[in-house]
Amino acid sequence: MSPEPEFRRDPVCGRWAVVAPERSHRPITLEGVEPRHRRNGERRPCPFCPGQEHDTPDEVLAYRASGSAPDGPGWQLRVVPNKFPAVRPDAGGAFCAVEGMVFLTTPGFGRAEVVVECAEHLADPTALNPQQFTDVFRAYRERLVALAGDPQLAYAAVFKNVGAEAGASLGHTHSQIISLPIVPEAIWAELLGSEAFHARTGRCVFCDLAARELADGERVVARSANFLAVTAFAPRYAYEFWVLPLQHSARYEAITDARASELAGLIRRVLVALDRAQAEPAYNWFLHTAPLRSPELAHYHWHIEVLPRTARPAGLEWGYGCFITTVSPERAAAELRGALPPDERPVG
Amino acid sequence: MSPEPEFRRDPVCGRWAVVAPERSHRPITLEGVEPRHRRNGERRPCPFCPGQEHDTPDEVLAYRASGSAPDGPGWQLRVVPNKFPAVRPDAGGAFCAVEGMVFLTTPGFGRAEVVVECAEHLADPTALNPQQFTDVFRAYRERLVALAGDPQLAYAAVFKNVGAEAGASLGHTHSQIISLPIVPEAIWAELLGSEAFHARTGRCVFCDLAARELADGERVVARSANFLAVTAFAPRYAYEFWVLPLQHSARYEAITDARASELAGLIRRVLVALDRAQAEPAYNWFLHTAPLRSPELAHYHWHIEVLPRTARPAGLEWGYGCFITTVSPERAAAELRGALPPDERPVG
Repeated sequence: MSPEPEFRRDPVCGRWAVVAPERSHRPITLEGVEPRHRRNGERRPCPFCPGQEHDTPDEVLAYRASGSAPDGPGWQLRVVPNKFPAVRPDAGGAFCAVEGMVFLTTPGFGRAEVVVECAEHLADPTALNPQQFTDVFRAYRERLVALAGDPQLAYAAVFKNVGAEAGASLGHTHSQIISLPIVPEAIWAELLGSEAFHARTGRCVFCDLAARELADGERVVARSANFLAVTAFAPRYAYEFWVLPLQHSARYEAITDARASELAGLIRRVLVALDRAQAEPAYNWFLHTAPLRSPELAHYHWHIEVLPRTARPAGLEWGYGCFITTVSPERAAAELRGALPPDERPVG
Repeated sequence: MSPEPEFRRDPVCGRWAVVAPERSHRPITLEGVEPRHRRNGERRPCPFCPGQEHDTPDEVLAYRASGSAPDGPGWQLRVVPNKFPAVRPDAGGAFCAVEGMVFLTTPGFGRAEVVVECAEHLADPTALNPQQFTDVFRAYRERLVALAGDPQLAYAAVFKNVGAEAGASLGHTHSQIISLPIVPEAIWAELLGSEAFHARTGRCVFCDLAARELADGERVVARSANFLAVTAFAPRYAYEFWVLPLQHSARYEAITDARASELAGLIRRVLVALDRAQAEPAYNWFLHTAPLRSPELAHYHWHIEVLPRTARPAGLEWGYGCFITTVSPERAAAELRGALPPDERPVG
């Protein structure tokens, strides 16, 4: 039995999983698959709305009116520890216990935080105004910088679940930041793959990808002065798209306020297009950046991946890691381009 | 645009995906998430029922009454090419074309086959009688042996989708065999992981795992003379379980008829327990075996993984490959043990 949350490493392929029996007590107010958001009708007061600050642990970051007190109203964005965390700062147990070289475990140590993205009870991230949307991407940066100060943490996963089918459990728009004592599998795979590419070619694979996509144009959805949005070349789900900076940068922490605003504007436009093209699908977005406290790396390049739930993965996907999509990334990009709202940002 | 199905390699992490625009034309008679099976009410004749053999391509294997003609009634099990394949034996295009070392593609070559597991229109694999269930595992072996004869194929993925949420699209119980010109990512990960373990210890990690699980017992769900069913130590989904032979064997092709019958009996019992413990969840099972034409390997060990859809993976899972479960594998094993039907097989 595992009363404490615990990381466990798959004995064969090395994938880390979290066994967190306590987490089953969290409230889930979004049920079923449709509609994507239950915009009203939640049965209890939303714990993320102003006036309910007592319902969450104390805030670790807030953008709030000057003079307003912490953990009370007056905020525009709040970051709070998750009340029902999958990992905990106080998790006990033996550090990296190995049983016969087969069963490796380590305590379910970590921090789970929620970024409440606005004070209004909005379900849909595209309902955020440009300033609110920008604040989300500034808050990501600030938390990454702060979390890097804890030497026990190796990686901070920054992601967002939109819609019940993508794992969202509460209808007030929010992101999550889960910081881990390990570097998770998908990031390792990217670090190793990009390092091998760099060793062969002397170049960053993401920089090459961006240059080729811009030259070719077939998978380009939108661009701004410093960012590019393209559909994924080898997608897991149809309409999967990636947003990456055109200038090489391994660490998201280095983003400026101006660039965060530009990034937010670009992502927001493509999400509006996705909602139009695919009738508001559920989706996740996640930030892939270098591990905490990493120096700038020549081979790695931060980016954001957006994964809409446009199909149901089956045995080939789950059993073998081989994804089938029935809409080509080129067609998806054309559809998304056709559905883009006008760019309201000043040029330059 | 991709009129032809195509394999594409992710430029960063190397994962292969299939872009198969044609496949969107396949019929889907199972819709929505609940109920797991639409046992009646399909709007067109089931293409897998006797009398509808003209609705599928010609059979490549059948267990049928002696004297009955191919592609007519009289069969107990039929293997036919998929009418709506994700990969095709005649896929054209340039072999392994690389654009600037970034975008690697190869034609969507391969074979997609369907194992129609019984003549009756049964939706649920546990409704198969013991002989029918055994035939499925014999047919897997026979097709693996036959497919190994095609030197263009590297791997045959053998899997089953049960329930719409696990990707099933037709309600007559069937498995799929998709043969690929590449070894898929999840198998590579297991081959590499088990090879590294063997290099360190001189032992097979699966043999070690089986010995430790048997000694400990906490995750053992059931066993027979030659096979073991255990819940996964680091699961992706709660109640995930693996079935593996107790004697080392890398190649499923080597299984005897008697062992196939024993394996089928064990898996069937645990599936009945899963249906009881979790109210008939959707699930996939998949066979992990060595690549086609592989010699016997000291480090690899074939096994079957059963992955029930007991949660909705969200951003941490999809974005970082880190799975959270809220039911410990030890508790899941105890529940499954408690729900096992009696073993009807003769002892010995």
